[in-house]
Amino acid sequence: MARTNSKAPVVERRAQRRGASDGKWRTALTCIEPNKILVRGYPLDEIMGRLTFGEAIYLLLMGEVPSPAIGSLMEAILVSFIDHGATPPSTLAARNTATTGASLRSCVAAGVLGFGRYHGGDIETCMHFLDTGLEMVRQGTSYHDAAEQILEKCLQSEEALPGFGHRFHTRDPRAARLFQMALELEIEGEHVQMIRAVEMVIAERDQTGTPLPVNIDGAIAAVCGDIGIPPGVANALFVISRVPGIAAHSREEAERHHPMRQIDPKDHFYDGPSQRRLPERRK
Amino acid sequence: MARTNSKAPVVERRAQRRGASDGKWRTALTCIEPNKILVRGYPLDEIMGRLTFGEAIYLLLMGEVPSPAIGSLMEAILVSFIDHGATPPSTLAARNTATTGASLRSCVAAGVLGFGRYHGGDIETCMHFLDTGLEMVRQGTSYHDAAEQILEKCLQSEEALPGFGHRFHTRDPRAARLFQMALELEIEGEHVQMIRAVEMVIAERDQTGTPLPVNIDGAIAAVCGDIGIPPGVANALFVISRVPGIAAHSREEAERHHPMRQIDPKDHFYDGPSQRRLPERRK
Amino acid sequence: MARTNSKAPVVERRAQRRGASDGKWRTALTCIEPNKILVRGYPLDEIMGRLTFGEAIYLLLMGEVPSPAIGSLMEAILVSFIDHGATPPSTLAARNTATTGASLRSCVAAGVLGFGRYHGGDIETCMHFLDTGLEMVRQGTSYHDAAEQILEKCLQSEEALPGFGHRFHTRDPRAARLFQMALELEIEGEHVQMIRAVEMVIAERDQTGTPLPVNIDGAIAAVCGDIGIPPGVANALFVISRVPGIAAHSREEAERHHPMRQIDPKDHFYDGPSQRRLPERRK
Amino acid sequence: MARTNSKAPVVERRAQRRGASDGKWRTALTCIEPNKILVRGYPLDEIMGRLTFGEAIYLLLMGEVPSPAIGSLMEAILVSFIDHGATPPSTLAARNTATTGASLRSCVAAGVLGFGRYHGGDIETCMHFLDTGLEMVRQGTSYHDAAEQILEKCLQSEEALPGFGHRFHTRDPRAARLFQMALELEIEGEHVQMIRAVEMVIAERDQTGTPLPVNIDGAIAAVCGDIGIPPGVANALFVISRVPGIAAHSREEAERHHPMRQIDPKDHFYDGPSQRRLPERRK
Repeated sequence: MARTNSKAPVVERRAQRRGASDGKWRTALTCIEPNKILVRGYPLDEIMGRLTFGEAIYLLLMGEVPSPAIGSLMEAILVSFIDHGATPPSTLAARNTATTGASLRSCVAAGVLGFGRYHGGDIETCMHFLDTGLEMVRQGTSYHDAAEQILEKCLQSEEALPGFGHRFHTRDPRAARLFQMALELEIEGEHVQMIRAVEMVIAERDQTGTPLPVNIDGAIAAVCGDIGIPPGVANALFVISRVPGIAAHSREEAERHHPMRQIDPKDHFYDGPSQRRLPERRK
Repeated sequence: MARTNSKAPVVERRAQRRGASDGKWRTALTCIEPNKILVRGYPLDEIMGRLTFGEAIYLLLMGEVPSPAIGSLMEAILVSFIDHGATPPSTLAARNTATTGASLRSCVAAGVLGFGRYHGGDIETCMHFLDTGLEMVRQGTSYHDAAEQILEKCLQSEEALPGFGHRFHTRDPRAARLFQMALELEIEGEHVQMIRAVEMVIAERDQTGTPLPVNIDGAIAAVCGDIGIPPGVANALFVISRVPGIAAHSREEAERHHPMRQIDPKDHFYDGPSQRRLPERRK
Repeated sequence: MARTNSKAPVVERRAQRRGASDGKWRTALTCIEPNKILVRGYPLDEIMGRLTFGEAIYLLLMGEVPSPAIGSLMEAILVSFIDHGATPPSTLAARNTATTGASLRSCVAAGVLGFGRYHGGDIETCMHFLDTGLEMVRQGTSYHDAAEQILEKCLQSEEALPGFGHRFHTRDPRAARLFQMALELEIEGEHVQMIRAVEMVIAERDQTGTPLPVNIDGAIAAVCGDIGIPPGVANALFVISRVPGIAAHSREEAERHHPMRQIDPKDHFYDGPSQRRLPERRK
Repeated sequence: MARTNSKAPVVERRAQRRGASDGKWRTALTCIEPNKILVRGYPLDEIMGRLTFGEAIYLLLMGEVPSPAIGSLMEAILVSFIDHGATPPSTLAARNTATTGASLRSCVAAGVLGFGRYHGGDIETCMHFLDTGLEMVRQGTSYHDAAEQILEKCLQSEEALPGFGHRFHTRDPRAARLFQMALELEIEGEHVQMIRAVEMVIAERDQTGTPLPVNIDGAIAAVCGDIGIPPGVANALFVISRVPGIAAHSREEAERHHPMRQIDPKDHFYDGPSQRRLPERRK
């Protein structure tokens, strides 16, 4: 009997998994009709000039127009990743592609492929990390004790602690800024509280004097959690936000440097404008 | 003698072209120092919350903070391409990658690679097309006669007319909206005038009754020309603007459809929200 | 105490993980000197004409020249995947890229990205599946009982059974051929025995009359296991073997079909030569 | 009148270019039927063990089984590009992707994208270069004079001379070996004669003492021309032949080096086996 039953699922599962066509298929993103384009129900020409690119990205991925507060956070999250300089491996993959004379889209594709497990994956991982702690909190554990437990579990595993520390920065200015905005916009919630609790527990344990503060990945993970953005969408935001930087480095490589050069990431310097303030009207 | 001279350049050119390292190399995009990130000279944490993603993209690619008017156009240009529905080949390349269970970054890369010669290349081509006409105008030819000449030259070539017509739309609502915004923001210039002249000449020649209006590629080409965005940067804007749509379709494919399905682009329908208006505050 | 200790690893692990440069780094693949290229120690010009491409691939990935028997199996494994027709999603991703006028390398890259979890991942998964059974065998379990146990475990999980069944073929002719070659070349070993045992157990359980034979993924997994090719190298062989098919479909798409067409995978037919025999000298 | 006529082509050409579906479409590569796979008419399971991977690649791309002589050249051509060491930008793009923890297919895709205009494009360019000379020869010009003219034309252009010189090697051992094989296999023809004539003219002009011999790109271009392989197929062979090297470097990067490292192409050394001879039976 068991054998019959256990044979069936084998075949079914193959069928389901390998399944060929499934007839008419559905999409809920964009409706195209002659002279009409509806994104999530809104005419695209009406969105133009009324929603910013960041708000339209939220609409496309989440299905609704964001509130002004969430819209502002979206812009800040997307801007926070706009460029990481010349040394990240994804940027170097794009520059190494650009130096061969490849098209911009080839360079961008090569760069995007470099968001591997160790590079950009932290946001999603950190969101799951915080959710594990929040489940304990919902069952009555204090934030501090929950933080103790998830930190301990992470340290015992082989995995790195997601959302903390940075190879360059002892204090990530982008994280501080995002937390400040979340506070001012009054969207701070349990995820921010959870990551703050973990930061505190690490500080308590620290006897080395080297702080391990929340980085931008961690800040985005917490803020996305508090505004209801699921991990998969947060990952999409990360990929989208890194593309302008990769495109800019690919263009600069093609325009400023000779083809087929050997690119040493450690052997460059910045010759752009020195530090300046934003125009008054921007403050 | 000629022989000696012509041998030298061979070697030199190889050297220049194949050149190995060129010592310390330069980048003008972003300066990374401990706890400080300067994008084009502006601290990234100060930009967050003060510039939109679209304005920050302009800053990164063009080097300066855009004026409010140019900033608004940037947002509209980026929004205008945010999604083209499920049928463009680049979207289908991304969906076919997603159905294999590939990561989001792999799907996005596959989609970006689909901006080939016939798909998205029109903006750059149209900008060069308009510039050819504007050179005649600067030498005293009228817009109408210049339009006649560049149209005739294009028709005699094998190339398609860049920036006009659409396989779905007889009138591209995005183009109309972008021209309206350029007018209201008072940045309309010679490029818009040039493409309007070409549109008029086509209409004069038309005895078929099927109009061939400016499409969104043409509108963006003209507006970018008038706000001083070079063709290469316009092409980068196109690639950047298409990424959210590709990411959204890749996610929907992975979440709504079973793996390894056969995707027929003609056999789908839209089941998202029906047409709706933006919230009042957005108007 | 524990706290001090557990803080250290956090920092160390970040350091190790984020680690910047590690000084002079090593490669054991190819040595390039003026007018000399050594692949795994062999002058490349001496290899040309003396090793086949398949043997050279083995040399590059495994570090040694294969025996004639293993060389023959390498060729057969690589040939077995050379093309899967027009319907696999990876091929469709490449064709959808080709129809946009993209370069061959862009089409090939898009196709390669389509070897996702559900498409080509089976070889590696199946090797681990068989190794689990072989560990039991080494501890005294019979092949039949080990097969029972790993099959049962797999059926209880959500995962599909790796290396068995096919969406088109009830009997995969490539698998039969590869097993026959392994037998003739006398390299059959415990991995082939293990997968045969699983096949037998499935047949015993079958009361549906629909067989679930070993497919080419399973056959390659078993044969690679028996000739000492690790899962990671087997995966590399798969990627390498699929590239010619993707390149051929990309070229055919660009040469036979008009640009920007909508590609329905179910709506095509084969118009190449009908079935034929190899020239005598090839048998 | 002219206006009516010239309007028509505009619309037609758009239609043709943008054309949606074209009903049932054709492929001549592979026929898939239940339990049967025909590649160019040959059952795939019969090809396994009877054709090498290189011969099967020729069959797939060219449509016929190669002669033994052409088969041997195919293997040699594919082997000649199997690896270029750690410094080519395409290899560095793959390694920079691998250091982020990306999948092998992502690394391979990133590497393939690096075959840009300046890196691997030479074969196709050189074939067109030689064909230009051969057209003159067919009209009665001598090889020497034709070589003079195409060389002069190339030097006057901005383009680099395709198929000559190398950034490392003053004498490319792979080119010498391929020419020797073409001679022994008696397939040397007018393309080899043409590139030899160009090489001679360059030597005549040389007063610098630095030779500019044919490189492997040039040798492959000439040999492919003489065995009737069109430029597009030669380009496909190049892409296919480079994949094993890119895959091997991606695997080595992931296995030997820690994640997220900064890869300086100039700062590495080879620690593989020192120079050795092939086993006797291989000679």
